[in-house]
Amino acid sequence: MTRWRLTIEYDGRPFMGWQRQDNGPSVQQQVEAAIFRMTSELATVHAAGRTDSGVHALAMSAHVDIARTLSADRLRDGLNALVRTEPIAILAASEVDDDWHARFSCIGRRYEYRILNRRAPPAIERGRVWHVAAPLDAEAMAEGASLLVGRHDFTTFRSAQCQSQSPVKTLDRLEVVRDGDEIRVAAAARSFLHHQVRSMVGCLAMVGRGQWKPADIRTALEARDRAALGLNAPPDGLYFAEAIYP
Amino acid sequence: MTRWRLTIEYDGRPFMGWQRQDNGPSVQQQVEAAIFRMTSELATVHAAGRTDSGVHALAMSAHVDIARTLSADRLRDGLNALVRTEPIAILAASEVDDDWHARFSCIGRRYEYRILNRRAPPAIERGRVWHVAAPLDAEAMAEGASLLVGRHDFTTFRSAQCQSQSPVKTLDRLEVVRDGDEIRVAAAARSFLHHQVRSMVGCLAMVGRGQWKPADIRTALEARDRAALGLNAPPDGLYFAEAIYP
Repeated sequence: MTRWRLTIEYDGRPFMGWQRQDNGPSVQQQVEAAIFRMTSELATVHAAGRTDSGVHALAMSAHVDIARTLSADRLRDGLNALVRTEPIAILAASEVDDDWHARFSCIGRRYEYRILNRRAPPAIERGRVWHVAAPLDAEAMAEGASLLVGRHDFTTFRSAQCQSQSPVKTLDRLEVVRDGDEIRVAAAARSFLHHQVRSMVGCLAMVGRGQWKPADIRTALEARDRAALGLNAPPDGLYFAEAIYP
Repeated sequence: MTRWRLTIEYDGRPFMGWQRQDNGPSVQQQVEAAIFRMTSELATVHAAGRTDSGVHALAMSAHVDIARTLSADRLRDGLNALVRTEPIAILAASEVDDDWHARFSCIGRRYEYRILNRRAPPAIERGRVWHVAAPLDAEAMAEGASLLVGRHDFTTFRSAQCQSQSPVKTLDRLEVVRDGDEIRVAAAARSFLHHQVRSMVGCLAMVGRGQWKPADIRTALEARDRAALGLNAPPDGLYFAEAIYP
């Protein structure tokens, strides 16, 4: 039995999310089905993070145990051939130690969030950015973002379905940068609560539109109450960007 | 009667191209239909360039004459609401003089071509980049590209359907830059022959893969013969980027 690490890119639009679901297609199910067609093995693919419906991944890390002897190139290229009708691509496959775990060995996660900030809706980037027509002040958003960095109780920015044992997380980075019509938010932490990035981005957009002052971000955080949330940003603009390992 | 300039973004995948066709949907038809629904006027929309099936536009320039009195904001937002089920967006609308013509007043056109150069196929950018799995030498491609800049007979790089009166064109710019897994080709000229950018990019890819030397680009150009063409790149990676006016 060999443990393989897979790096997977996907467009989240046609999926219910990463995780296998009874009510619709998932990325996990597609990759597991491709492995079954290749090896006749019913293997479970474990990912560093479980993205929601419509959320994308530039480079999700995952692992899977396969008994059949394969080369890394054969596994990567074979899986890509088998998932080719879906917007999923295996960027890399590599052998890892048996105790390496995509989720439990992960010491850092990076997300990116893309906002298209212009009057006209997106044509080319539809479903892959959050369209905000009203002008956003990226500098005010960056100021608000800086108030969330550090170790805090993020209950305000946590969905009701969150399964994390504690709402206390350490946010290592939350940066807002404008590039033409696009505003990009980069977030990094050891781990995130469910909906945390989308909830933080939604509140930052309220700051960008002038509905909130930057300091209102701190007020929302300190409320430790989901009812203090300004806005949960849609999944369209969210990308799982990187899982970091020791 | 007011002449309006429209700046239009579109994803070319679902369309037969810019131009109205009998055999399938076109961007022109969608925009004209939206104008008809808004004004009850059967207006013709003239564009700076006619993109082929599957070719995208970041900012196509076009003009249309409308009798009904409208504000620029109303026209832009109204058209966007009416085309919202299609991957088309009106980025801007502005009044222009009656003698302004999107095609005939245009003094420069810019195209961009995106190549995804990695082993794995695209997931997120599918249909919007040309996937080349074999490693490409971007520096050799840039050297080959420099040999095409200037005033030349581009017969080798011209499709059999090209309606241009002369195959002699002046290519102002053809630059190749690598950015991670992506290679971008930027082309600028007063005007291009049909398939010229895709044909030039196809030959540059042969240089990048080492099948051609950079100097073979000059040999192909000097042959003035379509049979000397190495490869015509697919429409997926091509974007009409800008139309320039005095």
